[in-house]
Amino acid sequence: MDIDYARRMSSVRPSAIRDLLKHGDDSELISFGGGYPDQALFPFDELRAVYSELLCREHGSVLQYTASDGLVRLREQVADRMSADGTPADADEILILNGGQQGIELVAKLLIDPGDTIIVEDPTFVGALIAFAPFEPSYATVRLDDHGMDTDHLAAVLKAGPGAKLLYTVPDFHNPTGVSMSLERRRRLIELANEHNLIILEDTPYRELRYEGPRLPTLRSLDTQGRVIHLNSFSKILAPGLRLGWLTASGELREKLALLKLAADTQSGTLSMAAVASYLTRFDIGAHVAGLRLAYRQKRDVMLEAIGREFPADIQFTRPEGGLFTWLTFPEGFDSARFAADTALPKAKVAYVPGATFFADEQHHNHARINFTGVTDEQINDGIGRLGAELRAVLAQRPIGVRGTGLR
Amino acid sequence: MDIDYARRMSSVRPSAIRDLLKHGDDSELISFGGGYPDQALFPFDELRAVYSELLCREHGSVLQYTASDGLVRLREQVADRMSADGTPADADEILILNGGQQGIELVAKLLIDPGDTIIVEDPTFVGALIAFAPFEPSYATVRLDDHGMDTDHLAAVLKAGPGAKLLYTVPDFHNPTGVSMSLERRRRLIELANEHNLIILEDTPYRELRYEGPRLPTLRSLDTQGRVIHLNSFSKILAPGLRLGWLTASGELREKLALLKLAADTQSGTLSMAAVASYLTRFDIGAHVAGLRLAYRQKRDVMLEAIGREFPADIQFTRPEGGLFTWLTFPEGFDSARFAADTALPKAKVAYVPGATFFADEQHHNHARINFTGVTDEQINDGIGRLGAELRAVLAQRPIGVRGTGLR
Repeated sequence: MDIDYARRMSSVRPSAIRDLLKHGDDSELISFGGGYPDQALFPFDELRAVYSELLCREHGSVLQYTASDGLVRLREQVADRMSADGTPADADEILILNGGQQGIELVAKLLIDPGDTIIVEDPTFVGALIAFAPFEPSYATVRLDDHGMDTDHLAAVLKAGPGAKLLYTVPDFHNPTGVSMSLERRRRLIELANEHNLIILEDTPYRELRYEGPRLPTLRSLDTQGRVIHLNSFSKILAPGLRLGWLTASGELREKLALLKLAADTQSGTLSMAAVASYLTRFDIGAHVAGLRLAYRQKRDVMLEAIGREFPADIQFTRPEGGLFTWLTFPEGFDSARFAADTALPKAKVAYVPGATFFADEQHHNHARINFTGVTDEQINDGIGRLGAELRAVLAQRPIGVRGTGLR
Repeated sequence: MDIDYARRMSSVRPSAIRDLLKHGDDSELISFGGGYPDQALFPFDELRAVYSELLCREHGSVLQYTASDGLVRLREQVADRMSADGTPADADEILILNGGQQGIELVAKLLIDPGDTIIVEDPTFVGALIAFAPFEPSYATVRLDDHGMDTDHLAAVLKAGPGAKLLYTVPDFHNPTGVSMSLERRRRLIELANEHNLIILEDTPYRELRYEGPRLPTLRSLDTQGRVIHLNSFSKILAPGLRLGWLTASGELREKLALLKLAADTQSGTLSMAAVASYLTRFDIGAHVAGLRLAYRQKRDVMLEAIGREFPADIQFTRPEGGLFTWLTFPEGFDSARFAADTALPKAKVAYVPGATFFADEQHHNHARINFTGVTDEQINDGIGRLGAELRAVLAQRPIGVRGTGLR
């Protein structure tokens, strides 16, 4: 049978992340691969109480269809939480999604014709590249350093390049590198977006997981023209298995995104939405997230200490103030994907995400993304120890460099 | 701010269904509009037991990320149920979705370039037209009668028309008309698809809700070349608020659809999937669906009797053997959308879906879709009584025609 696929399918290819998610259930491996929160910290008792309360005839509408935009009560709660975080929002601006990933896909569908340019950080979230692919974009990439996206470089890219429509960024505890965009650069980014008529997609799934340093304002709170679409999720602060995220957008952008949500899957799960709404009413999510911050800060510290102790000194890594990841930079010429396939997975029994997959344009092969939240302290010490031993063996002959973060 | 939307957005417009879903919570109205199952029949106790069991630390993975294709256990159960229904299926062919709607969107994304032709029934499911719209298809429409899609007309359309890629059909208790495709026509449709290299998207959300007459084989079970993508859902047999459907497809089609699912929203809700898997293990869904069939058959009978009693004789209606809907045909020149806005909603306080929205091509304004499953017997008798009184007043001056189903 000869199948005549849509042209866009030539841009859609299997991903490394998908293969990793497939191995998510394999208990033999220590995986620093996925962006998993710690399963032990999910609020089981509270959610059990909430589901038990809702699953009865009097609350029967929780199992029925509901409005495509999402439950009004949940949208109000989300808007209130955003406003409390310094990003004024109205329930009518919120659209409930099946996790943040759906928002990336909908925004690309809204804006991108084949060949249109999307500006992304270099590297950027691989899930965004996967969501963008069917819309056949071109990419312009912007350098990243310890203070996030380099807005001077962005200015140069915008000046030189063809008119870009959309800029995608993870300003807080960036995926994959862990770095955050400074306040000065956030302001500069908004200026540049206004100047060049860019829509910004601000993806903030890790925003509440700050372990140290001052909280920075969202891009949406700095936006004066309604050109920032803000994306967030309950996956990291409550549980990914509920599959609930949301976007915040203004006016016509929000209206058109709602039409695309309806077209894509009618609505998000009524029961999940009702359960989270009820959880937010009955329990103190702020206290829950404070607990996550304490636990994840500890895991981060264990991870960074283990890497510092076990890895050869010429492997650089970032020191994130929050979020889920640190980013490794191996010496030039080191191929982290080959090392994973030949050594890390079969010998050390350790998984990470090879860095090449995070680059929209020119791939760099000497990086890896390491997650520290989905693993125990023991797994961190064991896994990094095993990985370190193999790395020392492989890198033994190399000259010792100066340790840094590995970001330009 | 000047927003440069993607070209596809010129095809994406607000829908009548979306407005109806927004009114879904309004308790003043008697609504025959939505495709709602009866809320009173949801298995609350069983689902409460299932969620209570799962939401504990030992089952912690139900709140975590999982494989993008869906939980293996649920895919196995779905495959077993399909095989028992005469459609042999393997777990690897199943892809779990956020309801059937997502499958329509993914298949269009897989196959349709702007201008490509999709063949649909005339009328067809409005949700499919909404899902297709962003991919900018052309349509070829095929007549429908009491035996479903007219395959002679299809043969003529295929002979005359430009190469169509995709045919979308609801063969069992068609939405909106309620009719089912005969066995002979199912066979003929497969022949024509083979001849003309068509991919068939077979959408069967009502399949298990047969109230009388012999069960007919699915198109997928008659398919010999792997060109039928089968779509189904737990929305009508369990609960829509769980937001779980699935597709069944072979080989490369299935592989590529899985990549699009990953891109669209990473995965469906782990907790919903685990809950349905556990429900299927612990409880007898066959017995539950048998109960639904009894209840809905009764509602259908009450509805058809009420329409026959209360409506003027020149309004025709279909007599579905299953599913959720009957389809009204008013006399030529009657505008059901105007009547809804001017009379049915404000005076009779009754909602239905005006028929024009279900036509892909030339709209016919003298139809309406009437749902009978989401309402009580009392609501049916009250609502149809109120609607009938208004219709009699409006249609009093007209000549009395011969009553039929209103389908050509």
